[in-house]
Amino acid sequence: MKRYSWVWVLLLCFSVILNLLLASYVLIDGGNSKILSILRSTKEAEDVASISCSGHGRAFLDGILSTANNLEGANEDDPLPSCECNSCYYGADCSQFSPDCPADADSGDPMFLEPFWMKHAESSAVSGWHGTFISKELERHLQELHAVVGNANTTGKFMVFGAGSTQLLNAAIYALSPQDPPSPTRILGSIPFYPLYKSQINSKNFEWEGDTSMWKNTSFPSEYNSSVNFIQFVTSPNNPDAELKEPVLLEGPSVKTIFDHSYYWPHYTAIPALANEDLMIFTLSKLTGHASSRFGWALIKDQGVYERFLDYMSLNSFGVSRDTQLRTLKLLKVVLGTGKELFEFGHGTTRTRWESLNKVVSASKRFSLQKLISRYCTYFQNITVPSPAFFHAENLYVRLSLIKSQDDFDWLLQRMTALVSQEQVHEEHGGKTI
Amino acid sequence: MKRYSWVWVLLLCFSVILNLLLASYVLIDGGNSKILSILRSTKEAEDVASISCSGHGRAFLDGILSTANNLEGANEDDPLPSCECNSCYYGADCSQFSPDCPADADSGDPMFLEPFWMKHAESSAVSGWHGTFISKELERHLQELHAVVGNANTTGKFMVFGAGSTQLLNAAIYALSPQDPPSPTRILGSIPFYPLYKSQINSKNFEWEGDTSMWKNTSFPSEYNSSVNFIQFVTSPNNPDAELKEPVLLEGPSVKTIFDHSYYWPHYTAIPALANEDLMIFTLSKLTGHASSRFGWALIKDQGVYERFLDYMSLNSFGVSRDTQLRTLKLLKVVLGTGKELFEFGHGTTRTRWESLNKVVSASKRFSLQKLISRYCTYFQNITVPSPAFFHAENLYVRLSLIKSQDDFDWLLQRMTALVSQEQVHEEHGGKTI
Repeated sequence: MKRYSWVWVLLLCFSVILNLLLASYVLIDGGNSKILSILRSTKEAEDVASISCSGHGRAFLDGILSTANNLEGANEDDPLPSCECNSCYYGADCSQFSPDCPADADSGDPMFLEPFWMKHAESSAVSGWHGTFISKELERHLQELHAVVGNANTTGKFMVFGAGSTQLLNAAIYALSPQDPPSPTRILGSIPFYPLYKSQINSKNFEWEGDTSMWKNTSFPSEYNSSVNFIQFVTSPNNPDAELKEPVLLEGPSVKTIFDHSYYWPHYTAIPALANEDLMIFTLSKLTGHASSRFGWALIKDQGVYERFLDYMSLNSFGVSRDTQLRTLKLLKVVLGTGKELFEFGHGTTRTRWESLNKVVSASKRFSLQKLISRYCTYFQNITVPSPAFFHAENLYVRLSLIKSQDDFDWLLQRMTALVSQEQVHEEHGGKTI
Repeated sequence: MKRYSWVWVLLLCFSVILNLLLASYVLIDGGNSKILSILRSTKEAEDVASISCSGHGRAFLDGILSTANNLEGANEDDPLPSCECNSCYYGADCSQFSPDCPADADSGDPMFLEPFWMKHAESSAVSGWHGTFISKELERHLQELHAVVGNANTTGKFMVFGAGSTQLLNAAIYALSPQDPPSPTRILGSIPFYPLYKSQINSKNFEWEGDTSMWKNTSFPSEYNSSVNFIQFVTSPNNPDAELKEPVLLEGPSVKTIFDHSYYWPHYTAIPALANEDLMIFTLSKLTGHASSRFGWALIKDQGVYERFLDYMSLNSFGVSRDTQLRTLKLLKVVLGTGKELFEFGHGTTRTRWESLNKVVSASKRFSLQKLISRYCTYFQNITVPSPAFFHAENLYVRLSLIKSQDDFDWLLQRMTALVSQEQVHEEHGGKTI
């Protein structure tokens, strides 16, 4: 009996040690849920990878969700991305073949290397790839976000993805210009404007004409294909002065308008109403801060303009990186899943910075800040005090960015404080110019 | 004693069950190393996230590696990405501040939202972001790959990233054209050429002039800034006919050349020598197959041309998605880490497809395939048989893609086989036209 109990103690010890090892492995990071969350997102990726699509298709993490019964593992509570079938195959699991399907030997998309990456999926963290360039799931999330924030009406509008607002602004100019214009299309912005607008116009098809207000009293031809065509930029809220802007020229056959709504989010402005213009541009950079992801989207009412947009995108860069689309989708899920947190954080930070700067500058006679008014915000359901990203820039003005890192802002504030107190010292010493 | 041993049995049972639960959790995917590999790559991400950079900077997964002593945890065997400091901070761990540093209030990069994403890093799988647009680490890996494959000399060349070869070809035309040309720059390609070249030329600054050979006997002005400027595309291996091409026109002050080397990889061609031209374009799409990632790079000898390239990139899309750069880096690590596997797999697949197609077509009198010759490949150190991506296209020719999925190729082969056997049946019945 003694020998038995000794064996048992040994077994128990071994088992306990194993438990400790395993538990420490699982809880390696000190008990928080990081590993669990990684396992969860890995499980999501693996669930998707395990959808076999009969060997004739692929399911993608950002594919359209489906509850189709013949998709193994999918049900109403736990929809899975649906299969995207190889050509000539169809059905929820791509098991059907259509014998009348023509053999397609076009396209240079090198799908032949896929088996290599399936084999090395682990080390490259690649679970297949997409052959198509627009994620419908991402489009749906963007529509949902606009509905929740109440800043743009997406109903009845086409959506185009681009590499940030920069590429989309180029695409918009192209899409709104006549195909073979008798004279260059004239591009207008309202002072103060974002300087990139001007430098982008580097083709003989376009001419930068400067301030819209110069053309305010012009009467424009009322028929299409007139000899002179205008495109006006309306940046609202404006960069740099944060004002909500309206078009200066009336839209008409020879006057088209691009609404740059990059800053039309509750971090930077009150949202007084749902924007519903014919061509609106948004960018991830100003929504979430991920500037280097280069992602933006356009909402377009007219189908002809939409098709010209797609033309431009396909000639210019053949669409937007699918990796970027996948990451954007992940970010949007966080934004939508955390209630008002991003907007409250963003608005809180820019407002605090604006107030600190106001406090420093209010002691100065040399410097002043532009006056901004409070407005009712339909998103926060409250009057919101100003929280601009920048402030005014002209000859006598300077644009200060309030959206850089805290280090940058703190240092700006210190230097401003030093300048203002120098001014006071100077005054006490009799007002000599320095 | 009996009661004690009962307690022990219970304890042991409990412990063993816990063992089983924990073990099954750890080995959830059936004993392969997937979870371990995920934990490893997560550890990598966490190691990087844990580099504090004194709170005044960030380290990135694809940052430049450093073994600096004052970077906690870094040593010669295990270098960590170095800190990229906020402005005005410096030192390996960003702990030094330079008080003479001017406050920078320019730039619209919205870094102010970073704390929100640091907090939600788990669910969004985001470990910070980059403010800069070129990953030096990625550049280094691309240089290494060219050296290993022996297909391009990167020494003394600038590298520019673009959204696939499409955007880089646009950028190259812009960079090689005079800034304000007296007449449109004339663009030439050699028949058969990639049709996108022609459709990309949609600006009044450029004119598509068609086949290079038409200009073969022209004598070009010998001074710069002449009234007519030419750019010739040299696609080598050519799309669609897989031929290795040389420039038709002599390079000179008014004749510039763009080498499109998208297919200059051992999957598609023998590599007879190191390419060393002044402007070469490569794309991830044809190297790894990840077409939808939209990533390519240009190697540029001349600094002036390089700067015009950067201009174009910044005006057109403000650089290339950092997410795409990070994924490309991961893919390159796999390519470099698996020896010749990718190239052997790629070459094997295209060669087999080419041979199958040849076999079917050899029975036909109506169809024939172009003749391709075997060459010595410096990479495989062997004479390699042809493995083209496409074959010839003209009025009497058709381009067939051999790099699509296996399903697509199998169906193409079946349809070709049917066509050829129909031809034989037809012949046996007296040669009536069908």
